[in-house]
Amino acid sequence: MRNLHHPEREQLDLPAVLYALSDPTRLEIVRKLAGEGERACGTFGLPATKATLSHHFKVLREAGLIQTRVEGVHRYNSLRKPDLDARFPGLLKAILKATAPR
Amino acid sequence: MRNLHHPEREQLDLPAVLYALSDPTRLEIVRKLAGEGERACGTFGLPATKATLSHHFKVLREAGLIQTRVEGVHRYNSLRKPDLDARFPGLLKAILKATAPR
Repeated sequence: MRNLHHPEREQLDLPAVLYALSDPTRLEIVRKLAGEGERACGTFGLPATKATLSHHFKVLREAGLIQTRVEGVHRYNSLRKPDLDARFPGLLKAILKATAPR
Repeated sequence: MRNLHHPEREQLDLPAVLYALSDPTRLEIVRKLAGEGERACGTFGLPATKATLSHHFKVLREAGLIQTRVEGVHRYNSLRKPDLDARFPGLLKAILKATAPR
């Protein structure tokens, strides 16, 4: 099993986090993950190819926004809310509020 | 005098705003502007060429983060705090908190 790289909490970098969030599809992934615990990669119902989604999950993971757990051939993602809230208080909340369906 | 384009409040787009903020120099410009009203372009004391800074101001302006007023050969920038707070409540505050010198 491949080990995926996840930055430590203290390594999280604000510009990289904001860059990861600067894409509508990645914002939507974060919004969906915020509403629940863990979610398998194929279940987001987003209009993008598997390769494109893989890229988006990678950007989010490498910036420290999500945790990816590999189980057999499946990958399960969760939002690193405690880490994000500790490093950037109020940021995730403001972004989720701004992306809420109106 | 050239008229510079500024998007209206209702046109502000969250991914574009986050992208504009995803750069350390642009974050520093926003942080400096947050502490005061208006500031001339050449007074930021940032380690970047004039061309690079012009590019950063343009990205910030086109995303709706700053207002640029042209007066003769000078350009004065200010943060569009009321517009940002109206569209994305809490976002600017969280970002300024995260960029505060520790």
